[in-house]
Amino acid sequence: MQTILRGPLFGPENLLRDNRGMHAAHPDRTPGSLSYEQAGVDYAQIDPLKISAQRAAAATAGQLAAHGFAEVAASRGESAYVVDVGPFYLASIVECLGSKALVADEMARLTGRSWYDAIAQDTIAMAVNDLITVGATPLVVQAYWAAGGSDWFADAARSQALVQGWRRACETCGVAWGGGETPALAGIVEAGRVDLAAACTGIVQPKERLSLGERLAPGDAIVLLHASGIHANGLSLARKLVERLPQGWLTEVAPGLSYGAALLAPTPLYSPLLQGLWQEGIVPHYCANITGHGWRKLMRHPRELTYRIHTLPPVPPVLRFIQQHAGMDDRDAYGTLNMGAGFALYLPANAAGTAVACARRLGYGATLAGEVLPGAKRLVVDPLRLGFSGADLDLR
Amino acid sequence: MQTILRGPLFGPENLLRDNRGMHAAHPDRTPGSLSYEQAGVDYAQIDPLKISAQRAAAATAGQLAAHGFAEVAASRGESAYVVDVGPFYLASIVECLGSKALVADEMARLTGRSWYDAIAQDTIAMAVNDLITVGATPLVVQAYWAAGGSDWFADAARSQALVQGWRRACETCGVAWGGGETPALAGIVEAGRVDLAAACTGIVQPKERLSLGERLAPGDAIVLLHASGIHANGLSLARKLVERLPQGWLTEVAPGLSYGAALLAPTPLYSPLLQGLWQEGIVPHYCANITGHGWRKLMRHPRELTYRIHTLPPVPPVLRFIQQHAGMDDRDAYGTLNMGAGFALYLPANAAGTAVACARRLGYGATLAGEVLPGAKRLVVDPLRLGFSGADLDLR
Repeated sequence: MQTILRGPLFGPENLLRDNRGMHAAHPDRTPGSLSYEQAGVDYAQIDPLKISAQRAAAATAGQLAAHGFAEVAASRGESAYVVDVGPFYLASIVECLGSKALVADEMARLTGRSWYDAIAQDTIAMAVNDLITVGATPLVVQAYWAAGGSDWFADAARSQALVQGWRRACETCGVAWGGGETPALAGIVEAGRVDLAAACTGIVQPKERLSLGERLAPGDAIVLLHASGIHANGLSLARKLVERLPQGWLTEVAPGLSYGAALLAPTPLYSPLLQGLWQEGIVPHYCANITGHGWRKLMRHPRELTYRIHTLPPVPPVLRFIQQHAGMDDRDAYGTLNMGAGFALYLPANAAGTAVACARRLGYGATLAGEVLPGAKRLVVDPLRLGFSGADLDLR
Repeated sequence: MQTILRGPLFGPENLLRDNRGMHAAHPDRTPGSLSYEQAGVDYAQIDPLKISAQRAAAATAGQLAAHGFAEVAASRGESAYVVDVGPFYLASIVECLGSKALVADEMARLTGRSWYDAIAQDTIAMAVNDLITVGATPLVVQAYWAAGGSDWFADAARSQALVQGWRRACETCGVAWGGGETPALAGIVEAGRVDLAAACTGIVQPKERLSLGERLAPGDAIVLLHASGIHANGLSLARKLVERLPQGWLTEVAPGLSYGAALLAPTPLYSPLLQGLWQEGIVPHYCANITGHGWRKLMRHPRELTYRIHTLPPVPPVLRFIQQHAGMDDRDAYGTLNMGAGFALYLPANAAGTAVACARRLGYGATLAGEVLPGAKRLVVDPLRLGFSGADLDLR
């Protein structure tokens, strides 16, 4: 029953993606600034279901005993669910793209080309980047593409972009695309729209690769892997913001780069990097995929620890643009968006340099950004003079 | 490349659920009868995507070699995707409920109670009943509940019904509910609606339990496990039909049983039975989950074999009612709906009696219904004087 009280059985990025972050982070907001409530997501309405589902899900864990297996209880509330099946651990996850498809649709209308190759990668990234946090090697991805009607699939250019983007993302992650489900759900999914999700299954092998945070401790280094942009979190806000922009989606956020195109920069797939670290003999003590809640997600692990950031990763232009045009101060921006930190590795301090070098060799941006300290659950961002307390991350 | 030509990488129940069955089965239809085209699903529009996705998915199989694993190629085109991970096989699947949620919504409006406990079971049945066809023991279910807005989750009675129905179905199947995703997708999912799906992961252990049809052969017996009603296939047609009924959803299909309630009889979970058979030492040579394409699905395996049915299972009243009111002859009805056969087991003839007894002991209806014969791919239903050829099942 501890796990119920401690953690969401539905990971925070599930119920809480595109979410209340800003309000919780900064109740006294500037008039004229945009909030997630204004963007249409009301978590007070979802929470009772979430709690009830968490309890019911936790109550089913004992079912595994009949098969001679057991859940890894510490994975309840983490980004992927882990079961001990003997020779290794089994990890699984289902993840949704969210409302980024609506941005792809708008940009297709304006540019005459499909952007579904990019959001195919985003969808897989949502699943794979969660699955790898526990130390799993992703093996199989299943596609879930639910359209508002059969006609959605008749747009050949869009369909091809989706298929090829999906395939390439699978290849990047070294996973087999097992199959999937492509229902036409008129009356459930809006006409002309698609609900994209991915299920991913992997294994933790050898079992020593499990990284659920048991070894997370003061003295660990924090390496932040760079983000390519907004990823798939914050899109409700980003879509609301477009109404204020003079050229809408085509407003430039940097020379030659439209707001819409910048939002659609695909989320990096961090899986090859985690495999690369393993080949270097590095097992992270913990990992956090930075989705909903922005940097507050750095405090994800339930333990009472302080996380001190001394060096900031570069901020993608589109996130700086959103911060400025939505009237967000640093507290709002870093408490809601990834602000350049797509994924956090918590490592033994003596492995941090190797990890950063390995990341760069594999083409990822990476910053040795901070350290874990003893103390109350707290995130301190020195360069911005910001602090968030554990209470600011209301995931549990 | 054989597997591309041979089988759908997206199982037939994926792209082809609620589908063209009737037209393909009976081109010369009676005026006034209902077809799937009329019910709004047009598969000619989906097929190019399907073929392209199949090829792209098949091309990713080699990715597993880098991890020291390999796909089980015969599982491409079957109901679950199977990977050889050494000590056992890993099987995974994602499945969608489809449009049955719309019937639950209508019945809630008319009866003042929620029917989401029933369709929670249906959703899990769609995934689990597919996963077990390959011989897998399902271990983990992930929930995918995408709503049209946060307010969907605020209906406490409905949410509780969904949660408790989901939990009970997991318990029946002996699986752990790992977690899931509950996004609020305004602008993608229709307001007031929910898109329900389930991902399921399991293992085949020992590996001898794999039932992809290698041992399927003439002389095998066919045992049909009884259906509870329409399950989750045929709902588009069933919803179209309601417009013709005098009392609509509340029209009686049997004394005291409304059409709507009968449609919402939850799909049986066949997993405990497959576990029971294993405990009796019975490994089916092959299994078919009867979803889209009705009885034509009995010819699912790619091999050239003739399937002769000598004994019919009882027809649930709601299916007989649909057949009559939609003006379907037996060819249409059996070629489209399950007509009482929810799941088919292909077994060594000398195990059939034990299998039927085991099913009944565990509370399932079961009929020793037919046999496998040498010959061209063909289904012969003797009691109805019906025959379907392999060309009538255009899955591949």
